[in-house]
Order: sequence, then structure tokens, then C-alpha cells
Amino acid sequence: MQRDHTTAPLSTAATSGTSPAERSKVLHCKEFRWQGVEEEAYKAEGSHFSGARRQALIGVRPGEEAPAFETRYFELAPGGYTSLEQHAHAHVVIVLRGCGEVILDQRLERIEPFTCIYIAPHALHQLHATSEQEPLGFLCIVDRERDRPQYPDATTLAWLREIPKIARRLRV
Amino acid sequence: MQRDHTTAPLSTAATSGTSPAERSKVLHCKEFRWQGVEEEAYKAEGSHFSGARRQALIGVRPGEEAPAFETRYFELAPGGYTSLEQHAHAHVVIVLRGCGEVILDQRLERIEPFTCIYIAPHALHQLHATSEQEPLGFLCIVDRERDRPQYPDATTLAWLREIPKIARRLRV
Repeated sequence: MQRDHTTAPLSTAATSGTSPAERSKVLHCKEFRWQGVEEEAYKAEGSHFSGARRQALIGVRPGEEAPAFETRYFELAPGGYTSLEQHAHAHVVIVLRGCGEVILDQRLERIEPFTCIYIAPHALHQLHATSEQEPLGFLCIVDRERDRPQYPDATTLAWLREIPKIARRLRV
Repeated sequence: MQRDHTTAPLSTAATSGTSPAERSKVLHCKEFRWQGVEEEAYKAEGSHFSGARRQALIGVRPGEEAPAFETRYFELAPGGYTSLEQHAHAHVVIVLRGCGEVILDQRLERIEPFTCIYIAPHALHQLHATSEQEPLGFLCIVDRERDRPQYPDATTLAWLREIPKIARRLRV
């Protein structure tokens, strides 16, 4: 006798309706676009960034409320950059394609595929795509509950601009 | 006059001692080994997995307490597999190298670089490296606070073994 696999013993732990397997997702990837994931603007407004797009992989759609974090993929076109910002929450960034540089307060570091960056709370940061050919693509994982980014004031910007390597790279 | 960059305005948000930039980390990667990250056994004990190693990238060392999640990298040697398990916490998996298959209860899905898998709470899951040449390497992100894995009972295993595609792939 064939068991009915739609009413499996496994699904008893389900909270309602669909089974754990049905609530699971396998998002296939083709050229850094994930199946069923919309590509969006990096931020809703502002001009303090350039050539940036985002895909919210897991954590923001209905049925993805369980993890305490969101997994997003960002892509910066050649020459593009994110906004120079800081906040109380941390970022974990893992580069998937291209190369670039990251500003971390007074630090400037080169990044390339699979570099893992821990952006500690309150570190002012900005990512740059430095290849002329390839976009810089990276995962950025953040807590679901988090504060909004803050942008540096004039004093902080003046301080950063006194550091030659940062001054050369910085875009605001 | 040159400002002292070790006592920058940026560091006022620091909780103590080191600055946000100093608490940030840039872990460079060479052939899927991250600088300063130890490679460990996949699990402390057991024989219900094979050929598996882990690197805890961010979230477990001192100074990495801020994020509510841990970012780990796992690698399965060709033919290797993780333990067949389920738990109340979710997993987000992103494949970085190699190819394989994932069991999600009664589902079996092929995975390859950059496939993103959301393993919903209570989904029984097992990852397999199916290439004969290359390891299967993947990021696995989990909540910092999480329950311990549970292994399937005899009834559940019997149910899974009635599904031919799962029966062929399953290892316990």
C-alpha cells in the first residue's frame, strides 16, 4: 500500500496548511539573478549612491518570517557605490562576483570574490565596484529588527577627507 | 594640523576600547579557506554524516556578538553528506562551489553555485555533494539562538524510504 505523502508524519510539526517542505524554497540562480526574486532599486530615494540594485533573497516575503535575519544580494555596476552610512546593527557581507574596495571608517580594504566582511556596529562604511568590466555582487545579511542608516555629518566628512586614501575613494 | 585618527569623531559610538573600524573584519579568502578562520569538524561526534568540514566565518568569536545570526561555511568532500535532521529554526543556505542535491522531506532538488535554499522550520533536510571531482561548499546562516537538531525516528525513515528518489539518495 502506498502511503499518502501529502499527509506525511513529517508535516505534523507544521503550524498550519502547507508542510515544512512546501514552505522551504530552492531559488536557482542564473547569472546572478535568482528565480522568483524581483530585482529592486537599492534604496527608494536619494542620490548618495550609484549604479546599485538589490534582490531580497530570503527574509522579507510571506512565509519567511522564521529567521531573525534577512539575506539580500546587492550589485554595483562598474564604478558604482553604496551610500556612506553607519548604524547600530552589524552587516555581514560576502562578495560573490567582481572586485572592489570597502571603506570602514579610516580603513580602506580591497575585496574580491568570497571576501567576508564583518561591518561592526557604528562603523561608517561604503562599498565600491572598482572593476571597469564586471559588477561587484555581494550578499549582505542583516538582522530583521534593525535601526535606520545614518549619514555622516560635516565634521565627520571633513575628518575622513583628511585621510588621503579615503578622500580619493569616498563618494557622497 | 593633522588630526589624530586614532581618536576620531567616529569612534564616539564605540562601547569601549577599540573603534568600530577595528572591530570590523575583512576576511580574505583563498581557495575557500578564510584568513584567520579555523577549519573544524562538522560536528563533534556521530557517524550519520560524511566528509564534512566547517568554518565559522562570523558570529561565534569574541567581538562578533552583535548580529542575531551566525554565518558559517561548510564543505562536503565528493560523495559527502550532512546529517539528516530537522529543527525549529530555519536555515538559509547559499552554494558557493560544486554541485549536489538537497533532501527537503519528500522533495529532492539539484543545487549548484549560488542556489539559495530556505530550509523552513521542521523540514527534514540533508545535503549531498554529488560531483566526483569537486567538493560542495556552501554558506549556512542560522539564528544565534536556536534549538538542537533532531534526527528522524524509525517511522519517519520508513516513510521516506517509500519515496524512490529519496530512498536512493538518503544516508543515515
